[in-house]
Amino acid sequence: MNTVYGHTDAAAAGAPARRYLAVRAQTVALAAPLSEADCQVQPMPDASPTKWHLAHVTWFFETFLLERFEPHFKPYHPAYRVLFNSYYNGVGEQHPRTQRGLVTRPSLAEVLAWRQAVDERMLALLANHPAPAVLEVLEVGLQHEQQHQELILTDLLYLLSCNPLSPVYRPRWPLALVSPAPPVAQRWVGLVAGQPALSQAGHAGPGFAFDNETPRHPCLLHPYELARRLVTHGEWLAFIDDGGYANPRWWLSAGWDWVRSQHIESPLYWRRVAHGSDAAICSNWQVFTLHGQVPLDPHTPITHISCFEADAFARWWSAQHPAQPAARLPTEFEWEHAAQRYAEPALAAGNFLESGALHPMPVAARFDGPLQLLGDVWEWTASSYAPYPGFQAWEGPVGEYNAKFMVNQTVLRGGSCATPKSHIRTSYRNFFPTDTRWQFNGLRLARDAC
Amino acid sequence: MNTVYGHTDAAAAGAPARRYLAVRAQTVALAAPLSEADCQVQPMPDASPTKWHLAHVTWFFETFLLERFEPHFKPYHPAYRVLFNSYYNGVGEQHPRTQRGLVTRPSLAEVLAWRQAVDERMLALLANHPAPAVLEVLEVGLQHEQQHQELILTDLLYLLSCNPLSPVYRPRWPLALVSPAPPVAQRWVGLVAGQPALSQAGHAGPGFAFDNETPRHPCLLHPYELARRLVTHGEWLAFIDDGGYANPRWWLSAGWDWVRSQHIESPLYWRRVAHGSDAAICSNWQVFTLHGQVPLDPHTPITHISCFEADAFARWWSAQHPAQPAARLPTEFEWEHAAQRYAEPALAAGNFLESGALHPMPVAARFDGPLQLLGDVWEWTASSYAPYPGFQAWEGPVGEYNAKFMVNQTVLRGGSCATPKSHIRTSYRNFFPTDTRWQFNGLRLARDAC
Amino acid sequence: MNTVYGHTDAAAAGAPARRYLAVRAQTVALAAPLSEADCQVQPMPDASPTKWHLAHVTWFFETFLLERFEPHFKPYHPAYRVLFNSYYNGVGEQHPRTQRGLVTRPSLAEVLAWRQAVDERMLALLANHPAPAVLEVLEVGLQHEQQHQELILTDLLYLLSCNPLSPVYRPRWPLALVSPAPPVAQRWVGLVAGQPALSQAGHAGPGFAFDNETPRHPCLLHPYELARRLVTHGEWLAFIDDGGYANPRWWLSAGWDWVRSQHIESPLYWRRVAHGSDAAICSNWQVFTLHGQVPLDPHTPITHISCFEADAFARWWSAQHPAQPAARLPTEFEWEHAAQRYAEPALAAGNFLESGALHPMPVAARFDGPLQLLGDVWEWTASSYAPYPGFQAWEGPVGEYNAKFMVNQTVLRGGSCATPKSHIRTSYRNFFPTDTRWQFNGLRLARDAC
Amino acid sequence: MNTVYGHTDAAAAGAPARRYLAVRAQTVALAAPLSEADCQVQPMPDASPTKWHLAHVTWFFETFLLERFEPHFKPYHPAYRVLFNSYYNGVGEQHPRTQRGLVTRPSLAEVLAWRQAVDERMLALLANHPAPAVLEVLEVGLQHEQQHQELILTDLLYLLSCNPLSPVYRPRWPLALVSPAPPVAQRWVGLVAGQPALSQAGHAGPGFAFDNETPRHPCLLHPYELARRLVTHGEWLAFIDDGGYANPRWWLSAGWDWVRSQHIESPLYWRRVAHGSDAAICSNWQVFTLHGQVPLDPHTPITHISCFEADAFARWWSAQHPAQPAARLPTEFEWEHAAQRYAEPALAAGNFLESGALHPMPVAARFDGPLQLLGDVWEWTASSYAPYPGFQAWEGPVGEYNAKFMVNQTVLRGGSCATPKSHIRTSYRNFFPTDTRWQFNGLRLARDAC
Repeated sequence: MNTVYGHTDAAAAGAPARRYLAVRAQTVALAAPLSEADCQVQPMPDASPTKWHLAHVTWFFETFLLERFEPHFKPYHPAYRVLFNSYYNGVGEQHPRTQRGLVTRPSLAEVLAWRQAVDERMLALLANHPAPAVLEVLEVGLQHEQQHQELILTDLLYLLSCNPLSPVYRPRWPLALVSPAPPVAQRWVGLVAGQPALSQAGHAGPGFAFDNETPRHPCLLHPYELARRLVTHGEWLAFIDDGGYANPRWWLSAGWDWVRSQHIESPLYWRRVAHGSDAAICSNWQVFTLHGQVPLDPHTPITHISCFEADAFARWWSAQHPAQPAARLPTEFEWEHAAQRYAEPALAAGNFLESGALHPMPVAARFDGPLQLLGDVWEWTASSYAPYPGFQAWEGPVGEYNAKFMVNQTVLRGGSCATPKSHIRTSYRNFFPTDTRWQFNGLRLARDAC
Repeated sequence: MNTVYGHTDAAAAGAPARRYLAVRAQTVALAAPLSEADCQVQPMPDASPTKWHLAHVTWFFETFLLERFEPHFKPYHPAYRVLFNSYYNGVGEQHPRTQRGLVTRPSLAEVLAWRQAVDERMLALLANHPAPAVLEVLEVGLQHEQQHQELILTDLLYLLSCNPLSPVYRPRWPLALVSPAPPVAQRWVGLVAGQPALSQAGHAGPGFAFDNETPRHPCLLHPYELARRLVTHGEWLAFIDDGGYANPRWWLSAGWDWVRSQHIESPLYWRRVAHGSDAAICSNWQVFTLHGQVPLDPHTPITHISCFEADAFARWWSAQHPAQPAARLPTEFEWEHAAQRYAEPALAAGNFLESGALHPMPVAARFDGPLQLLGDVWEWTASSYAPYPGFQAWEGPVGEYNAKFMVNQTVLRGGSCATPKSHIRTSYRNFFPTDTRWQFNGLRLARDAC
Repeated sequence: MNTVYGHTDAAAAGAPARRYLAVRAQTVALAAPLSEADCQVQPMPDASPTKWHLAHVTWFFETFLLERFEPHFKPYHPAYRVLFNSYYNGVGEQHPRTQRGLVTRPSLAEVLAWRQAVDERMLALLANHPAPAVLEVLEVGLQHEQQHQELILTDLLYLLSCNPLSPVYRPRWPLALVSPAPPVAQRWVGLVAGQPALSQAGHAGPGFAFDNETPRHPCLLHPYELARRLVTHGEWLAFIDDGGYANPRWWLSAGWDWVRSQHIESPLYWRRVAHGSDAAICSNWQVFTLHGQVPLDPHTPITHISCFEADAFARWWSAQHPAQPAARLPTEFEWEHAAQRYAEPALAAGNFLESGALHPMPVAARFDGPLQLLGDVWEWTASSYAPYPGFQAWEGPVGEYNAKFMVNQTVLRGGSCATPKSHIRTSYRNFFPTDTRWQFNGLRLARDAC
Repeated sequence: MNTVYGHTDAAAAGAPARRYLAVRAQTVALAAPLSEADCQVQPMPDASPTKWHLAHVTWFFETFLLERFEPHFKPYHPAYRVLFNSYYNGVGEQHPRTQRGLVTRPSLAEVLAWRQAVDERMLALLANHPAPAVLEVLEVGLQHEQQHQELILTDLLYLLSCNPLSPVYRPRWPLALVSPAPPVAQRWVGLVAGQPALSQAGHAGPGFAFDNETPRHPCLLHPYELARRLVTHGEWLAFIDDGGYANPRWWLSAGWDWVRSQHIESPLYWRRVAHGSDAAICSNWQVFTLHGQVPLDPHTPITHISCFEADAFARWWSAQHPAQPAARLPTEFEWEHAAQRYAEPALAAGNFLESGALHPMPVAARFDGPLQLLGDVWEWTASSYAPYPGFQAWEGPVGEYNAKFMVNQTVLRGGSCATPKSHIRTSYRNFFPTDTRWQFNGLRLARDAC
């Protein structure tokens, strides 16, 4: 097996069909509580309809696997090749991205029938000792589908938030998993001290990784510390109460332009329900979630903030603690260095899609070291999304997957409460523009070590 | 019975419940072939979702009738009062117009249940000798619902046209009613000759009319003639073939800006299927309709053109006929004057919603006089939409129905193939901005008489 | 002499060169107080630079007179034909309108040199019994230049208003002409009473008129009355103080959208200098004028309002006077009917460009009848700009002067304090979109007569 | 002398007044050939008027030096503090950036008089052993003014390019300095080979540096090579001729969106003068420069390209040379590492503002090593503009100079033909968004070393 699309370890490869069916079923399960109308609407250009997600991930298997490997391949519906192509110029034309929500036909039932037909053909392909090349692309397709599972949830949250009736996707609140334990105090965890140190970043195999996580390469880390836990809703309330969104002092120039032109006054899904003189009272605010509109819990990690907001908060926080070194966002290499060390407990304790919470949760102090590195919220870093030294994109059209986005985006790390647990890695690089808020994006502070 | 909302004649008033049920059923019937997804999407700000139409017309009865006349009125759902208010500031706040398509809940089934509940309460209200005031508002509500029946079809046509698969609403083509007879030759019909003449315009009762059709008043008509039939697809092909969309000579300044900035090259739903050197070959073009994409028939009246296009065509047509007086759009008063004279045969021969064609049709020479005055397509006029002398808007919030739109709009007359036959009158004034194309808008030429 | 461009009366034709020089000199005189920088800038797409005006009116003479009638014509600079063409497609390409302010070369001095060169050639053309065709186009060119004299002032006012230092064009305030007499009380003047009456509208010659003022034609007037004087700043203050800009009840739907999207809270050049609880105190406001920022005088006619504002004021005013018939804007035919009767005193008493006030002024009761019909401010009418019955545009490229703008514009009548006195007529039709405010546009109320 | 604003070396500090006068005089000299109109206009939001530049750099000295250090300071004109503040929130409000071109008063003469008055007060301040703090801020002010000297030229070039008459700023072409020697062949220069190597980046003093060049810090370089010379116009022609702007294969996703939405087909100032089938013929193209529109010289370095274009070219170039390692943009650390080694000859041979060419020039092979590292064009790098490890912004309002722009910008290195020679350093970091083209931005290729 070559390494074009990364290694697939032996155990997984032993049961590709089972794994295929499990991932595919999980996608359909996420859509199960939704009406056809819910699955149809695109509330903004970035938030695609659930039906489109259901179709596009199927398109991926048909285009990159069946078309290439199935004998006598014939497309299920010739028009789908264009209709559900997201952005692969190497495959051909694409239906305009902003018009995904206008395609009311094929119906949801027809899309689900297509899924089933593709599943049957995929199972046939996987039945008899599939070639390594098949297994490699299969793994890309499954990882791709897991990414869209997270997007189904974030895009749906955005859609439901536009409805003045505040509809509920999952009627479960308060979350059973919310810890009644006293909140974990914030403190700094030293990771590199004294002198700059060489580390290794990037995927080290075995197991799947995207091309953008490779090659593994040495990098130089300056002495640094990480906050033990994520920034919380309660800390964010204090930022708002101090006029954080109205003071240019905390903001990058582009961030300040954004705050003013977009009239930003709080994280995306916060809703002011009372207008007292003191914003920092939790009961003045509620938060819209996949469980509907709920009270603001001060110990829950902050989420749905842009990188501009994360950066401004760090600068404000530093001014509140003048005796300490200034806080800032970690670089992606600092984050990865820490995560490599604590990967095992972070994965074990992580709040992922499988927890069913679908919302970040207050931290529990389960081990000594930075908590919540994996799951809960994607952590904004200070790093622009750029190729690693020696980077080579995957060959063929699938090489458009990651490489062509390496400009004007910022890296986020660690996965979220909407990420499937089997999808995340310490080398995983997510990326979004600095003004992105509809993802489960949050913040952990870092600082230089003396 | 006073005349606030116009007269309702005795026969109709005798069976208000039957008429109510018939109109309401017709709306639901139009939506019957549609999926929940089809009913959900708003493809552009002006084209509302079918589900919204179904809800808004119900809101009208609940707000203007039940709330006012029902003893112990209690709203079906308090939030609907805002959610389905279109533009009545007198009623209160409105859900933003551009976000109607984002409301996936209430579901289509819930909206239909609401319809049914309101219908039951309406029938109770109408059961025992309803007061004249009830009957008056009832008539407004039914006329209002008929307007939305037409909008359901035109908004749906726009939505389906955005789908690259060209879906079909009604699979019936060629239209059974299409006349195999030879086309009716164009000629001019004189209506006023010699000297200016006084006429009367506006609704003369009995029967319902909107406030904007009143008061009936004298108006002065200069000698004029009308074209016997509507401009056709075939004539429009000649305009295109002569470079009509590329020559500023034919266009009003604002029209030319519109053509260039919007890259307009043909009527809204025309699609070039071959690129020969000669555009004027019918087989080079197809047309998208509620029956799907169909061949271009040269004898069918042109439709889905803006007022800018209508005006440019008239100027181009005049240049092709230099020996004749220049052609132009008729004024609304010229049109009404002619329509009053030919109202009966025009209504009898008209192609309305009830024909099932849902598309304009080639004319048949059924009588001597201007043909197709009613039905087929709304005819753009040269008249800006303005109040008649002595105009008074209806009292109360329903006064916002028509009056507040009397600026920057152009009057259209005559109804279309999507208009219910019982809804149209010769005094009926429709109005849209000059760049509107998604309605069944077409063109009849007029000219000064020597 | 034919009538293509209207009649030029004998007296004026006897001295075309003198008149030519006088008009041309007036344009240069208006620019004299300005720096090259002042003459260069285009503060918004509609407000052209003074230098461009100086050049464009010269272009008009070179293109429509010298090029056509001068033997051995050679252009002064070939590029100017495109550079200073405003919108005549019949002449050829145009420099983009929005980029007029970017043309820093030719310099102001070069443009003035061009003016002088064209003047010399024009004088030669006019020297020896010029042909009637020359005199006709000459008159069009001079009327055209007078229009641009007004535009120079209104465009400059807009430019200076953008400068936070509030610069002064003409340092003369208070205006010497401001009447110390007690203000003229408002009252209604009946013009047609009892029954509708036939009148004649349009230019009746002799003397120049634009094509859009012809042909003179009968029109039907319904009984009406006009306010004796224009609406004043003081009356507008009361409208503001009553929350006029915050209440949708007064506004047309499109006007309300405009108010909210553009954050309109007062006429264009009003500036709040104190924020008391009572807006209706004059000293809370100042007004920016060509004399700089000056105190608000309650007796001065209101100016720099849009048609939306004029219409809303009329509706608000009517609600304050519930015992009276509703006030509204006059139609252009009502206005012209009244102006024909009072043309002579209105012209004699009018506040035009020549008064030097460059601002509307409180009215003096000089005669019995509607005052201020000519001069002070252009009066918004209820009439859309449309061709008169039998209208024919001038032949040739100059036919683009007026005709191609006959859509989506509203007629204004009467001239303003920036209009040359010799330029105005009772049949004169000015026209602008309904949201236009940078012209000297004001309001006189009208109403139906019982 | 502390190091808040960097060291000022002893020799320079000995004659601060002389240096002050020299820099100030150079700014005025750049504006000398311009009319008041040329100095007034802002052709796009990013390109400020020359008059504004002349005023803003004076504002800098008045605000940061006179206001702080002059006894009994009184502002020259109180309104200028807001009017000519660019973006310093710490100083207070700012006149809106997009409206700089609307300020026709103060006049150019008034701005020059202000300059002179400030110069006199500055000389008084510098007369008697000025305090170290004064000298530090003085140096910032002079470096700031030198930056604006380059901006005066690039903003002016943009303005003149908008004039269809193609005006000339400096009538000197062909450039005397253009080498008649045969062009230098492209080849790769190895800088780090074998294993990753530690290097030092950032300013090492003495001498002035901006805060963003500090602190000097170790960085890790992977083996790499640099192209010996810049990419040329001739090479770019080949890219165009191969359809480079029409093939998504070469472009980052955001770059491809930019190319299509902005209709980009060539570098900013290229103009097609003939439309042969073969774009790669130099005579088919001309280039607009500060010398007017001139023939395209194939050996001149490419300039006025965006980072998107630079990146696409590298990918295209690699595909033309499949046997070689892929070319890419250098990181800013690779560039600085090379420039440190060749700083002396690069500075000696560089084509800067002082050469008078005001355009990049064909390279001469003056030494062994990468040529043209300093001067000619700013070189796009692969590095996002980010703080160095341990970075601290300057204290006080001047800390807004650089730090608040550290997001969504790309670093450029090396200075250009419009940069004053005394202003550039190997540690100097320029930065612009990826779509910026109106600066003298060009490209040198890099690649990984095996």
